[in-house]
Amino acid sequence: MIATCVTVYVLPEYVEQFIEATIENHRGSVMEPENLRFDVLRAKSDPCRFTLYEVYRTEAGAAAHKETAHYKKWKDTVAEWMAKPREGVAHDVIAPLDPEVWKTERKYG
Amino acid sequence: MIATCVTVYVLPEYVEQFIEATIENHRGSVMEPENLRFDVLRAKSDPCRFTLYEVYRTEAGAAAHKETAHYKKWKDTVAEWMAKPREGVAHDVIAPLDPEVWKTERKYG
Repeated sequence: MIATCVTVYVLPEYVEQFIEATIENHRGSVMEPENLRFDVLRAKSDPCRFTLYEVYRTEAGAAAHKETAHYKKWKDTVAEWMAKPREGVAHDVIAPLDPEVWKTERKYG
Repeated sequence: MIATCVTVYVLPEYVEQFIEATIENHRGSVMEPENLRFDVLRAKSDPCRFTLYEVYRTEAGAAAHKETAHYKKWKDTVAEWMAKPREGVAHDVIAPLDPEVWKTERKYG
């Protein structure tokens, strides 16, 4: 598994549009066969700071995400809305180790 | 729901002990009634950098975690092993919104 925490700072005037575009990306991402989680979070201390928590079963699955139409659309759409470049930190998983307990239930599509 | 990302930098000589103590904390935490997730992650770019991803159904549940024996033991045990103070960023959840899809399956206890 690979778990990536992405920190995004959005320009205040684009926050609502960013949320809308990111929910759309979330809906597409959780439908990917190798995706286990795609959580969208907003910092309580700063309404312009967001975390995306993206977990894939394999490195290949994480790489495949970047080739999807929903990711490419999101990346191009939000590019001009960011206050600074987003930062992703990729992790190995220590616990829990069973990929099945990571899976977001598919409620879309 | 409240989702907290905690970043921890551990002194190299204590990394293995930190992992052991944190897995024990994970096992206790996922048994808490309000806990939805307690993921333990290690950064691929830095073997001394860890992320704890802690999700609780309510603020009260997140507060109750800090009163548990397993948390207090972990906090005291790892205090001297950290290269710098740990940093937690608390978030509101934007997606997914159903708490049921967040839950770590209880495999312990």
